[in-house]
Order: sequence, then C-alpha cells, then structure tokens
Amino acid sequence: MFTRPDVLPGHRAAACFHQFKQRSPLIHCLTNDVVQELTANVLLAVGASPAMVVEPAEAAQFSRLADALLINIGTLHSARAESMLAAIAAANQAEKPWTLDPVAVGGLDYRTEFAQRLLRLQPAAIRGNASEIMALSGLQASGRGVDSHDDSLAALPAARELARGSGAIIAVTGVMDYVTDGERAWAVTGGDILMTRVVGTGCALSAVVAAFCSLPGDRLDNVATACRVMSLCGERAVARSSGPGSFTPAFLDALYQLAPEELQ
Amino acid sequence: MFTRPDVLPGHRAAACFHQFKQRSPLIHCLTNDVVQELTANVLLAVGASPAMVVEPAEAAQFSRLADALLINIGTLHSARAESMLAAIAAANQAEKPWTLDPVAVGGLDYRTEFAQRLLRLQPAAIRGNASEIMALSGLQASGRGVDSHDDSLAALPAARELARGSGAIIAVTGVMDYVTDGERAWAVTGGDILMTRVVGTGCALSAVVAAFCSLPGDRLDNVATACRVMSLCGERAVARSSGPGSFTPAFLDALYQLAPEELQ
Amino acid sequence: MFTRPDVLPGHRAAACFHQFKQRSPLIHCLTNDVVQELTANVLLAVGASPAMVVEPAEAAQFSRLADALLINIGTLHSARAESMLAAIAAANQAEKPWTLDPVAVGGLDYRTEFAQRLLRLQPAAIRGNASEIMALSGLQASGRGVDSHDDSLAALPAARELARGSGAIIAVTGVMDYVTDGERAWAVTGGDILMTRVVGTGCALSAVVAAFCSLPGDRLDNVATACRVMSLCGERAVARSSGPGSFTPAFLDALYQLAPEELQ
Repeated sequence: MFTRPDVLPGHRAAACFHQFKQRSPLIHCLTNDVVQELTANVLLAVGASPAMVVEPAEAAQFSRLADALLINIGTLHSARAESMLAAIAAANQAEKPWTLDPVAVGGLDYRTEFAQRLLRLQPAAIRGNASEIMALSGLQASGRGVDSHDDSLAALPAARELARGSGAIIAVTGVMDYVTDGERAWAVTGGDILMTRVVGTGCALSAVVAAFCSLPGDRLDNVATACRVMSLCGERAVARSSGPGSFTPAFLDALYQLAPEELQ
Repeated sequence: MFTRPDVLPGHRAAACFHQFKQRSPLIHCLTNDVVQELTANVLLAVGASPAMVVEPAEAAQFSRLADALLINIGTLHSARAESMLAAIAAANQAEKPWTLDPVAVGGLDYRTEFAQRLLRLQPAAIRGNASEIMALSGLQASGRGVDSHDDSLAALPAARELARGSGAIIAVTGVMDYVTDGERAWAVTGGDILMTRVVGTGCALSAVVAAFCSLPGDRLDNVATACRVMSLCGERAVARSSGPGSFTPAFLDALYQLAPEELQ
Repeated sequence: MFTRPDVLPGHRAAACFHQFKQRSPLIHCLTNDVVQELTANVLLAVGASPAMVVEPAEAAQFSRLADALLINIGTLHSARAESMLAAIAAANQAEKPWTLDPVAVGGLDYRTEFAQRLLRLQPAAIRGNASEIMALSGLQASGRGVDSHDDSLAALPAARELARGSGAIIAVTGVMDYVTDGERAWAVTGGDILMTRVVGTGCALSAVVAAFCSLPGDRLDNVATACRVMSLCGERAVARSSGPGSFTPAFLDALYQLAPEELQ
C-alpha cells in the first residue's frame, strides 16, 4: 500500500553538507526549556552557530539577523508564544526560513491550537514523529505523549498532504525518516532506538533541519541531508557507547568529526 | 537515641523494579530550570517517559493523562506556581500521585510559604535532604542553601512526623537515605559524596520517586526501591568515573543497564 | 601599538585558588536558560556551591545570603530583568560583589539598554568577549552574534576605559584573556578553540569570575586566577577529548582534580 521512497543519493547529501560547512549559518532557536543545551551543542558540533533570544522585541530583531529560525513548542507558554509570533513575523518579512517542531501536538489542546495557527504562517519545514505529523495533517493520531507509536512510513501520506497544504517540507522521523515536499520524497536510513532514550535528539534534529533550510538549492535535498547527518552520527555514536549516557558525548564528537565526503 | 531502620530486602526491591520496567510510566515533571535535562535523561534511562508541560491549562490536562506528577520548587516563580497548582488539582482529581521536592525550603520565604500550602494538597511522597525535611516538619533547620549539613538519620523523627501530618511517604536522603510512612521505615545504603558535586542528582531522584509512586502495591517499598536504584547506580558510576564530569554519562549508562534481579 | 601585559605569576594564582578552596563560596546565578546546568556543574566541580533563585522577592533575599551574584543577560526577558534588579540592589546593600556577563550586547537593543543601566549599579567584574566589551565601552563593535571576531588584545584599551568608568574589573576573553582594573592588567594564556564549540564555556567562566570576586585580597589577581583555572583545565580537557562531546566531561573532571599548587 505504501511505496517506500528511495534514499537520497550520497553525492547530493555530500554536496549539501559541503555547502553547509562553508556557510556556518546562525540559527535563532526558540525551543523548549528541556533541550536548549543539547540543541545548542548539536548546532555547534555540526558547524552552525546557535542563539536563543526570547524577549519579543529582541526575538524579532534577531530573527532578521539570523540565517534561520527554529520554533519548538515542547514547553510552550503564553509569554513564549508571543515571542514566537514576533520572531516568525520578522523572519517572514526578512525572507528567512523558519522550521516548526510540533512537540506532542494532537494530545494537548493549547499547543494544538497554536500549532494550527502557525501552519498558516508559511513554515519552510516541519519535523515531527508520525503521530505529530498525522495530528497536524488532521488525520487520526494515536499516542499520548512525546513518543511515536505509529510507523513513519504509515504517516507518509499525511506528510504529503501536510506539505501540500502548508507549503513546507515535511520530515516525519522514526525508525526510518521520510522527507517530502508533497510530490517527491526521500527515505533516510540510520539512527538507533537508543536515541529515543536520550531527551532532545528529535528536537536537536529539528534545529539542524532549520539550519539546513538556510542553504540555497533544493530544500527537499537539504532537509533530507540534515536527517542523514544526524542518523549517520547517531549510528556511529551508538557503536561507541554503552548506554544513553555515553551516547551524548560520542554523538557530539561524531557530528564534529563528520566530513561532507563521508556522506557519499 | 536514633534507631537505624533495616534495609529494604533485596527481593522486594527487585519485585518493585520488575513491575516498574513492565509499566514504563509517563511522568509529568514541573521541575526547576537547572535540572530539566538530567531529570528527563534519568527517567528515560531507568525506563520511564518524561514530559514537561507548563502552560496552566495544558499542565492540568496532561496531569490527568500522565501516570504521576513531580513538583520541584527549585526555581519557583509566580507563573510556574500557578501551573503547579493547576497540575496538582488535576492529578488529585484523576487520582494520580504527585511528589514534592521542596528544594531549599526553610531558608527562603516565598518557597517556604508555597511548600507549606502544597503540604495540604495530599502529596504521595516528599523527597528532600535533612534540612529541608526538618524545615517542612516545623522543626529547627540549619543550612543556608541547597546542601544538607544535617545527618539524615537525625532528621528521621522529623520525617516520621511529616509523614503522619501530610499522609505522604517521606524520603530523607543524604549519606544514607531513610524512607518512612510515619510508622514503618527503611534505610537505603549506597551513593557517594561525588554525587553532591553534580547538579540535579537529588532532583532526579525525586523524579524517580514520583515515577515509582505510580506503581500499585506498598508505596513505602516503591519509594525505597526508587532510592535504592539511584544509589546503586550512583555507586557503580563513581567506580567508573574520575570526577563529576565522567560521572554523569556513567550514571545514565548504569541506570539503563540495571536489571531488576541485580537489586536482590 | 598594543603592549601585551604580563602573565599573572603562578604563585599568586596558586594563593588565590588555595583561598577559594578553603571558602567554597555560595554563588547566586541569574544566568541564561541555555547554560544553567553547565554553569552549576562548573561551580560545583571547582569547589563552589551554586544556586539559582528567580522570583524577585526571593532573589533579593538570597543575594544577601550568598557570597556573590552572577548576572548573565543571554536570554533576558522582562520578568527576569526585574529579578536581576532586585538581586543586584540586595547584593549591593549587603556588600556582596556581583559580576556581569553582557552576552551579545551591542547587537540587540533591549539587552544593550539594560546592560548600560546595569553599568551604573557598581558591578565588581564584567566578563565578555572583545565585541561585547567594546560595545559596552561605547567603542565600535563588530560581530552579529555571540561569537567574537575581534581580537581580545585589540579590545584591551576599551576594557581599560570600561574599568575606569564602571569601577569593575574587566576580563576580555578570547584566544588570550586580558584582565584589567583600568590601570594594571594581566594576560592569561591557555584555553583552546574547541571550547568555542561547546555552549556555555564563556558563561561558566563568568560564574567562576563571580565566585572569585567573593575572595578578599586583590580583585585583579582573583579574577585573573578564575580565568587561569578555566583555561588550564580547558587545555587539559582538550588533550583528553576527541571533540566537543567528550570535552565537557573531561573539563569538569579536570576542574574537580585541579589542586592550587598546580597553578604555580
């Protein structure tokens, strides 16, 4: 019923990552309180520069200066929602891409209404697990919390629909990741179940997606490359670790050491 | 003067932890800003699922869905206090247990008044160091900050009194931990002084206590098992580390690797 | 054009650090949301006690009890600004030193106005990179974000002027660090470029500077010693790590293991 898309060719991923390394983009992160340090460290390790600026006036000012914006609603509250709206408006005005991570959308009302509102503000990309992408697309979602219990391939039709409706590239991640613009799609292999035992790996991936959205060229390829960089380094880190504690240092080291040609 | 309670028998701790592993409870954490990542990673490593939901309406909605709630007042401010009260009311209504970590209570007025108010809202458990438990019980406390300078055994009478007054299981932790329901008590051995050089080990223990409170059966045993899991893994991590930096990865790995039968 | 100051003699650094270890100061940290855990762990590893207390009334109460206060404006917002002003007023009244980390000042209006206001409140020390110190001094600054692109030696004249105007010891940090009271100055060697790929190393240094400001004796020597402790341990950690992930555990271990006589 669901045809599995092809994997992004290695030489295209390598070309995207090469461009990323040359640009070292500055990323404005309005993300949840739990994952801020890991998010910043992942961006630094992979070669980008993160900054978190939260007061609404400054958030708007900074979004015009930064190369891309990340919006993550994991610990959304009303004051932060105001900062997010100001930052998004400024980013859109300055034609800087912004990426949405709709954490736990569907299960909780306040964030679900907010995420639906954000959908109309032209996100460049949305990264979520299967239940989040299904909830955003309006299809039935299962799951009560932040873990996905649906298979990401089963959510690909919802992802395609969401891409067409919002104009965003959708990355639906899980054991396999799928990235689509509504028509075309790439599969991304790699990663490891151990990564679900470390808080913030998905949120950090969304930050890397946001950073890759600042590149010129085919955004579908760029977002798929972001997913591939993270899944490859995740695999390497798992091979060097004996649990979720030793995973994190090994993961950041792997991101730091990864050269574009290794993606080929 | 103070009789040392017995240690919780290993087979009872093993049975509690076995049940915990089967349930993988979902824990709502309203905790302090400094320790959110470690708290989440400890819960994930030990086999639970954490989530932090802070907007008052959502915090209430999520407390009804989660298996247990943690309230930690380390970085309390008025907006977060409102979220906590909403979450506690919802948890009580849905008959989900909530656990209090009264960080630095006694030394600072705002949180002390708030903690006293929370005491009347039927906490399932309270985890603190000796000075915090003494301050909550109304007995004289020493200490100016977050470290305990009183011996936990000396605070056991205060813990018993606090248990009887509040209806909660009290865990007073230090070089040795003591857990009491006001009548019965268990001692918990293990841990290491190095853990006091890593921020959030006590706060993370409170989250694990909250998670174990979601189990059926004797809550005194369940809370003592939570303390034992953490102290045993702390000891193992210290044996593999050369300071507080290498302790944290080793600690999370040890929690992840711990099997119920190892508690026997 | 710029004469490089001498390095602080090792026996003076050793004497400062010896005194620090004996006192184990309690430090009140009002710092940015991204770096709170690392800041606390660095202070704990080096032998101080951190605490973060944010509600304005409590923040003021705690600043009177603590030995020193840190103000870091990285994720400044209006509620936190109120807490900072309350804490500073209380610290000044109780004659406890407070230290400013003016993160990204110059590039963003809200924090720049706030930092200028704080300058008039008698900071004991200010720690920033070259572009931040130049912006605070009123000289032209380059750079759009949190990384410094100016050389710290080139910013030393601005640091001297800022020291004379504010009465604070100024630490301008980069590949080399320079510490000045407006007249005298010390250079501090060490550190590594890898530290710029780990979020919060500069912010944590500011916390250690705040802690060393609580010592009696020559504050210029004390602040230079704080910089030297961090740069030496940074060098040692880099030698034992293979990227920014393994750096952090190694850095905390190195801080924990450092004995005063090793500074000679």
